Amino acid sequence: MSHRTAPEHTHPDDVPVETALAALADPVRLSIVRELSTSEEWSRSCGTFDVPVGKAALSHHFAVLRAAGLVEQRDIGAKRVNRLRREEFEHRFPGLLALVLREE
Amino acid sequence: MSHRTAPEHTHPDDVPVETALAALADPVRLSIVRELSTSEEWSRSCGTFDVPVGKAALSHHFAVLRAAGLVEQRDIGAKRVNRLRREEFEHRFPGLLALVLREE
Repeated sequence: MSHRTAPEHTHPDDVPVETALAALADPVRLSIVRELSTSEEWSRSCGTFDVPVGKAALSHHFAVLRAAGLVEQRDIGAKRVNRLRREEFEHRFPGLLALVLREE
Repeated sequence: MSHRTAPEHTHPDDVPVETALAALADPVRLSIVRELSTSEEWSRSCGTFDVPVGKAALSHHFAVLRAAGLVEQRDIGAKRVNRLRREEFEHRFPGLLALVLREE
C-alpha cells in the first residue's frame, strides 16, 4: 500500500458549484465530511470512518470528495490520512459547509 | 392536458438537505431555477425553459424540483405554470439559493 500513487486533488477554486453540491448530496460522503469536521486535521485514516460501505466504494467516495475540493489526503507510511479543506471550501462556497454540518 | 392530476408538492421544511443538494446538482435543473429566479411568479409554463431535454425528462426534472421544495406549480387551463419558492427555501436552507444563483 505504501507504493501507490499519491492522490490527485482539486482546489475548491477550480470546482463548479454542481460538483460541490453533488459531492455533498450523498449520505456516505456527508457522514465522512461531518466526522472530519469534528476531527483534528490529518488524524483520520480512511478506514476509521463509520460508514456502511466496502473498500472500493469508500475509495470512490474519497475520490469524489477530493475532486470537489472538500478533502485533502496525504500518505503517511501505509496510512492515507485526511483533512477537511474547511477554509478553502468556505472561501469558494460561503455557507455551504455550515449548512450541511448543522443538519446532523 | 387539462384533466391531468394536480402536481404534488413538498414544503422546503420537510426536505432533507441531501435532497435539496441533489436537486440543485444538475445543470438542467439549475438552468430552470436560474430562469425562474429572474421571471415573474407564475409567468413561466414548463415548455418555456431553454433546456436541451425532451418532454418526459423535463417532467422528471420538475418533479425533482417540486420534491426538493424549490418549485411550486399550478395548472391554469392547459398550461402548468411555475414559481420559485424563494422565501420558503431560503428560510429552510439559508444562503443555498444565493450560492447557486451567483454562479451563472
